[in-house]
Amino acid sequence: MVSRTVVRGGLVITAADEMHADVLVEDGRVAALAAHGSPSADSWGGSADHTIDATGKYVIPGGVDAHTHLDFPFGGTFSSDNFETGTRAAAWGGTTTLVDFAVQSRGKSLRAGLDTWHAKSDAQCAIDYAFHMILSDVNEHTLKEMDLLVAEGVTSFKLFTAYPGVFYSDDGQILRAMQRSADNGGLVMMHAENGIAIDVLVEQALAEGRTDPRYHGEVRHVLLEAEATHRTIQLARVAGAPLYVVHVSAEEAVAEIAQARDKGLNVFGETCPQYLFLSTDNLAEPDFEGAKYVCSTPLRPREHQAALWRGLRTNDLQVVSTDHCPFCFQGQKELGRGDFSKIPNGMPGIENRMDLLHQGVVEGRISRRRWIEIACASPARMFGLYPKKGTIAPGADADLVVYDPTAEQTVSAETHHMNVDYSAYEGKRLTGQVETVLSRGELVIDRRKFTGRAGHGQYIPRGTCQYLI
Amino acid sequence: MVSRTVVRGGLVITAADEMHADVLVEDGRVAALAAHGSPSADSWGGSADHTIDATGKYVIPGGVDAHTHLDFPFGGTFSSDNFETGTRAAAWGGTTTLVDFAVQSRGKSLRAGLDTWHAKSDAQCAIDYAFHMILSDVNEHTLKEMDLLVAEGVTSFKLFTAYPGVFYSDDGQILRAMQRSADNGGLVMMHAENGIAIDVLVEQALAEGRTDPRYHGEVRHVLLEAEATHRTIQLARVAGAPLYVVHVSAEEAVAEIAQARDKGLNVFGETCPQYLFLSTDNLAEPDFEGAKYVCSTPLRPREHQAALWRGLRTNDLQVVSTDHCPFCFQGQKELGRGDFSKIPNGMPGIENRMDLLHQGVVEGRISRRRWIEIACASPARMFGLYPKKGTIAPGADADLVVYDPTAEQTVSAETHHMNVDYSAYEGKRLTGQVETVLSRGELVIDRRKFTGRAGHGQYIPRGTCQYLI
Amino acid sequence: MVSRTVVRGGLVITAADEMHADVLVEDGRVAALAAHGSPSADSWGGSADHTIDATGKYVIPGGVDAHTHLDFPFGGTFSSDNFETGTRAAAWGGTTTLVDFAVQSRGKSLRAGLDTWHAKSDAQCAIDYAFHMILSDVNEHTLKEMDLLVAEGVTSFKLFTAYPGVFYSDDGQILRAMQRSADNGGLVMMHAENGIAIDVLVEQALAEGRTDPRYHGEVRHVLLEAEATHRTIQLARVAGAPLYVVHVSAEEAVAEIAQARDKGLNVFGETCPQYLFLSTDNLAEPDFEGAKYVCSTPLRPREHQAALWRGLRTNDLQVVSTDHCPFCFQGQKELGRGDFSKIPNGMPGIENRMDLLHQGVVEGRISRRRWIEIACASPARMFGLYPKKGTIAPGADADLVVYDPTAEQTVSAETHHMNVDYSAYEGKRLTGQVETVLSRGELVIDRRKFTGRAGHGQYIPRGTCQYLI
Amino acid sequence: MVSRTVVRGGLVITAADEMHADVLVEDGRVAALAAHGSPSADSWGGSADHTIDATGKYVIPGGVDAHTHLDFPFGGTFSSDNFETGTRAAAWGGTTTLVDFAVQSRGKSLRAGLDTWHAKSDAQCAIDYAFHMILSDVNEHTLKEMDLLVAEGVTSFKLFTAYPGVFYSDDGQILRAMQRSADNGGLVMMHAENGIAIDVLVEQALAEGRTDPRYHGEVRHVLLEAEATHRTIQLARVAGAPLYVVHVSAEEAVAEIAQARDKGLNVFGETCPQYLFLSTDNLAEPDFEGAKYVCSTPLRPREHQAALWRGLRTNDLQVVSTDHCPFCFQGQKELGRGDFSKIPNGMPGIENRMDLLHQGVVEGRISRRRWIEIACASPARMFGLYPKKGTIAPGADADLVVYDPTAEQTVSAETHHMNVDYSAYEGKRLTGQVETVLSRGELVIDRRKFTGRAGHGQYIPRGTCQYLI
Repeated sequence: MVSRTVVRGGLVITAADEMHADVLVEDGRVAALAAHGSPSADSWGGSADHTIDATGKYVIPGGVDAHTHLDFPFGGTFSSDNFETGTRAAAWGGTTTLVDFAVQSRGKSLRAGLDTWHAKSDAQCAIDYAFHMILSDVNEHTLKEMDLLVAEGVTSFKLFTAYPGVFYSDDGQILRAMQRSADNGGLVMMHAENGIAIDVLVEQALAEGRTDPRYHGEVRHVLLEAEATHRTIQLARVAGAPLYVVHVSAEEAVAEIAQARDKGLNVFGETCPQYLFLSTDNLAEPDFEGAKYVCSTPLRPREHQAALWRGLRTNDLQVVSTDHCPFCFQGQKELGRGDFSKIPNGMPGIENRMDLLHQGVVEGRISRRRWIEIACASPARMFGLYPKKGTIAPGADADLVVYDPTAEQTVSAETHHMNVDYSAYEGKRLTGQVETVLSRGELVIDRRKFTGRAGHGQYIPRGTCQYLI
Repeated sequence: MVSRTVVRGGLVITAADEMHADVLVEDGRVAALAAHGSPSADSWGGSADHTIDATGKYVIPGGVDAHTHLDFPFGGTFSSDNFETGTRAAAWGGTTTLVDFAVQSRGKSLRAGLDTWHAKSDAQCAIDYAFHMILSDVNEHTLKEMDLLVAEGVTSFKLFTAYPGVFYSDDGQILRAMQRSADNGGLVMMHAENGIAIDVLVEQALAEGRTDPRYHGEVRHVLLEAEATHRTIQLARVAGAPLYVVHVSAEEAVAEIAQARDKGLNVFGETCPQYLFLSTDNLAEPDFEGAKYVCSTPLRPREHQAALWRGLRTNDLQVVSTDHCPFCFQGQKELGRGDFSKIPNGMPGIENRMDLLHQGVVEGRISRRRWIEIACASPARMFGLYPKKGTIAPGADADLVVYDPTAEQTVSAETHHMNVDYSAYEGKRLTGQVETVLSRGELVIDRRKFTGRAGHGQYIPRGTCQYLI
Repeated sequence: MVSRTVVRGGLVITAADEMHADVLVEDGRVAALAAHGSPSADSWGGSADHTIDATGKYVIPGGVDAHTHLDFPFGGTFSSDNFETGTRAAAWGGTTTLVDFAVQSRGKSLRAGLDTWHAKSDAQCAIDYAFHMILSDVNEHTLKEMDLLVAEGVTSFKLFTAYPGVFYSDDGQILRAMQRSADNGGLVMMHAENGIAIDVLVEQALAEGRTDPRYHGEVRHVLLEAEATHRTIQLARVAGAPLYVVHVSAEEAVAEIAQARDKGLNVFGETCPQYLFLSTDNLAEPDFEGAKYVCSTPLRPREHQAALWRGLRTNDLQVVSTDHCPFCFQGQKELGRGDFSKIPNGMPGIENRMDLLHQGVVEGRISRRRWIEIACASPARMFGLYPKKGTIAPGADADLVVYDPTAEQTVSAETHHMNVDYSAYEGKRLTGQVETVLSRGELVIDRRKFTGRAGHGQYIPRGTCQYLI
Repeated sequence: MVSRTVVRGGLVITAADEMHADVLVEDGRVAALAAHGSPSADSWGGSADHTIDATGKYVIPGGVDAHTHLDFPFGGTFSSDNFETGTRAAAWGGTTTLVDFAVQSRGKSLRAGLDTWHAKSDAQCAIDYAFHMILSDVNEHTLKEMDLLVAEGVTSFKLFTAYPGVFYSDDGQILRAMQRSADNGGLVMMHAENGIAIDVLVEQALAEGRTDPRYHGEVRHVLLEAEATHRTIQLARVAGAPLYVVHVSAEEAVAEIAQARDKGLNVFGETCPQYLFLSTDNLAEPDFEGAKYVCSTPLRPREHQAALWRGLRTNDLQVVSTDHCPFCFQGQKELGRGDFSKIPNGMPGIENRMDLLHQGVVEGRISRRRWIEIACASPARMFGLYPKKGTIAPGADADLVVYDPTAEQTVSAETHHMNVDYSAYEGKRLTGQVETVLSRGELVIDRRKFTGRAGHGQYIPRGTCQYLI
């Protein structure tokens, strides 16, 4: 027995099209789109189990957040959102798919890491999810495991030029992993900062008593982000592999990516809302409040924001993810009082991404279609989730958001649904808000009430990157 | 009474999506798309007046050719396709919309030129069409007329840094036209070659007895294309106006556009199939056969092709048009025997564009979606025809092509439908062929029979550029 | 009978070397350098007719100012320094050679123009001089004359992309002149601004009542300097000729030259002290005082200065000349009250160049050797005056300056020797001053007294450019 | 009692000047230069102890070779020239100063390394010499020692991003050394190749049986040279220190340096004759002969040569050194039969540099003055030897070479004076040859007879870099 839902009267927006169309959902998938008011569309009314009125609203694909860290161990603590709270907050924010990072522990197998993350997430999620794999230890064994993981749907692997002694891989390990990915179709994701050099600057800063959060931004020099970006692009060229650079924050790093792309290379860049809306001004907030904004790559001086928006417009940056990795100010961020290097790195944002990017639409920085492209379609395509996710088209999963483009909201920790005691955007006024969310046809948010449940969300094995040129 | 057509079983491809979907056409527009085999799709069967079986085929938007010269006066003769023969050939090639160039004659008004082109085309066309306006004489009067034309749907204006004494505008005229377009929303299109310098080289070549067609390529130096591209980009920056550079052929010109785009400027580039597939080798064909390939910008050495394909992949070039401007070898091209500067400039291609670009898909140069984007969606968006044209979505005009991706064909003047006595691609074997074409729901090509008619095609007033960032 | 002068005890500075050496002058030429205190040096004392004590001072080559306009017709008036007053002021400023611009009048021959300038200068000059030729009218006749002029020692030819209707040449004329220079060894000098576009902006500014001097700077847009610089570089590449761009003022133009030089092209750039020390702030001085700073290319916003100094350090700019073209504020600059376009273009500076550049040494912007290189050696080499001029070496003309690096001076119209009623640097305090000047061994300035005479200065036929790579 | 030598009748060439001058040498230094035939010059004849006739010859400064490895331990063997044979060969080739690399052994002090090299060289050298220091182990202790060494005249420090486990420093160590050099005036010299990545490629090549010498060139990928060049430039920017990149061989690396220099950074590049004249064609010579050409950075494909010559012309590269590090083919190079990674890295060339660069003059690639600049003046200035070395000026050391620009020679191991059983340029015909060499006024080569002696050469403490901008 087929269940049918119709979303009527909205403006359907995809990465390519805007259309006044009704959307017919059958058994969790988009069955059809029909011009609003057409005989076809009208014929659906009778047989629908459920009709959602989207008049005056946008109907957009559910967001795809390709960079989250739920229940993530860092600096002796864990990020404060687990898979239950994190995915619920994501749904509130109009995101219906996320790709989280499973972690290989040094000396252990990829499999063991992946199993751990399956255990963390299994039956916990309100929305669909998938995994990237963090490679902490590239060696003959793990290189072989990469092939197996690609085959079973974990098709992207994150490496770090940062965090020596923890996640850091040297250039030889990076090269080997890239060579392997060139063969098996995996996509290497890179945290590109010269961690070895940064550690020197950290040590020097602390030795000189520069211990406040703002020095976190100073020691993680823009040139050391640009450098590692350039370096790993060259390694990818030597390996003949594509490269996806995560959380690009510095104008100089965007320039490296732009230069690579002008050559026609498969080099991709992701940025995050915090780099588009926050700056070193926040890191310098007094009374240790700057700690709330400590993440890596760090926030940059305000003038970098324009370069990031420009990169999003010119497609030198393709994806906006959150790097959601929340730590409570009390008890967690406070671990770094008197030593910025001990502040857990990460910020909350999984709930705010779609709205903040819509604010970019409101402010004329990007078009509506580009909003959907960078927040839904491109991440889906980049990470092998397309066309199930990221678009509204016959056959796609019915992950739909009814978005009210005129609603006014004020971001606040008091009203957000993330399990963290502060908001990075506290008090910020935004135009636009998620009204209703469907995940595979089921109502998760219904006119701003949570109607979902832990366990609805399914693990999704992914295909390989569909964005290569 | 609504007429209904269903296109069943094909792979629908748009700039963004690929879906196994049936397409329902009602009254000339796309009414709905439904997943093939879904109850919705199956329900259409009964009521359809007409069903087209697209099983195993692609269903793509009709092509949009944004650069044609039908019945065009040049060098004392006229291009050999008029609006009847040209639009029919276009339909054969899967193109359902074209934007032709109306010409202002020096000393006359834009209006007069536009009227002339309406007279040429009225009731002649097999497919829909629109007009750009060639500005031959920028002055106070014509600047004012620009506003009127934009208001009535002629929203793009071509200027030339080439052809002194004919179409040439000086930099002051160009700047003025750009300033005006910045205000009225028009888009300046630029033939970017330094015609003043080229004329010196032409005179010198002829004086030295270098009169063969291949010297046409030599005197129109790549650096003189790059120079004019750079120059007009700077003028556009001064004017605060967008710029669309037509028929980009030189790698160095692509580089200028890429550099501008990296800065986030609204600078766009078009190339043509001849630059992607032909080269100066053709211009050097003996027995004056090179004259067949004389067009401006000229064909370039073979190594430029890779840069053009790369530009298409990286979106440094957005559109592929034909610059279709055919002259028969006999009687027309022959005007330039003994003096290459007298060879009418132009090549036939209106019928070959979709197939040649599909060949790029077959050869792995571009993806299927990118094929549709550069041939259908982007030109439609660039020239204000979206979403009527260039996509398959509820509400769009039902300009649909059933494309057989596995058919084999050999290009030849003997079988083509353009009114010209040679093919620039004679003997070239291609994979893929247009099978059936609908224009606003009406069959124009039905399983490779022409079923259209002169006069079916409608003039389309256009909106302003929808591609600005 | 040989006349002998010894300059003792100074620090001799050339473009390459610094040495504590005595300089022996015989018959107007440098006969020998000997280490100070060496037996050789000491042996000169007895036989010297004249000994100049340079202890604690620099001994530098006389300056070579390769860009002056004495007695120059512009906008219905003449620059206020003639060859007598101008060369005297030059000597006061430590310049012992200048290259002035003879002007071809439209419709007349180069020869006629050159004759006029010889008549203006003959027996008037206090220092040696040579001529460039301004080509106002490139045609078959004048192209042939270029060869003759090169042969007789007028080896550089200035063309303008600015000043339509006056000095302007179109791109075809420029190309032809460049082709000719590629053959005859001449060097094309370019005033690179897009004058055609600028005239549009001028007309618009005046029509809108923007008539003050500062609008002179706004209409002559930096991008229009960069554009013409790029354009003429490309034309030079097509012609296979070197190019020397005069009075570069915009960072964007420096970038074009740097890019060309990175390719190994013989492209050279000159800037002037006014661009290094003054800015649009001066153009905006109230009460029409801004008119004092009207020159073309115009002064730029202050931030361009750093790019020019950097260009001088990196050798992307090779020469600093003055473009000395003074007009009195009263009676001349005032011609443009109410219409900035009628302000005669030009500024005084022939007397200040060596001191202002030494100030760059004092402020750490350039080294002492680089000071001599850009002010003496490179202009001499660029314009075929080497090794007679621009260095201190056996065989060179004994054009020597004893320079006191610690003297303090305040620039003022009250004390300067140029025939103009204002100083562009009024009140500016400088460290360093010319003390004594020899021209071919004769004292022209003797411990800050003028001891020269009109007619001492000789016309110097020049060789071709010695700076090509 | 003063000893006096006169070099008469030659064309004296320095980095800046060419003059027909006689050179007077007193007590080992240049006392004076006088125009040939002048009374001054003629007056020297009587009192001279020795007169050298340079009629028809060049008189040039003795060459300064800033990169040699005499008696150098590498791969279990020692370079085959010791300080006696190596400096003698240098003198034969017109080089009168060299800067060799003292090596810090891991775990030992810089002082210990320096002492070892003093012991190797003391009383052995035919020409003057100085030392750079190789930092194998950057730590708190050695950072402090850097200051001491700078103070005593060892003012440059070489680090390696290549050779992991041997000379390799990580980016943190490099940053620390650069920071220190920013304070103490030292100059960091960088062997810039990504050795970590290269070792992966080496291991893979050997595992796949690609063991011939030519694979040495393949695994040391051009992008891995460009990458390390870019990386260390960024580290230098972070440290605020200058950087000198040794033995630049890849066009892409030149581009990185050029880009840095366009920004006005104190980044310098050195190349070597082998990269200008040899290529991967040599590495591919059969019968293991390719091993003769194994050095790192490796020889590159022939097309890179043009970029290097261009870099020398544009001053993107400032210095040509030899990286002389000879190993005999028999017994030494042969250690790597069957495993290219075991071939000792290095080539002979100390005797050939001046002649090969003169060949560049003969072939029109560089001017005579530029020859002297890159081979004598710039290395002297770069490494704090100026004005003692690198020029011919009063006060400079009388290191003079009488060079016959028309002599013909054929390079051969049979006739060369280096202690190595092959020549990298065997059979190459050159125009130009050293005729006579003076070191501090003493004849070392007298009309092609060696008249010098071990022990004449003195150790020269150096000042800091004089080339900063």
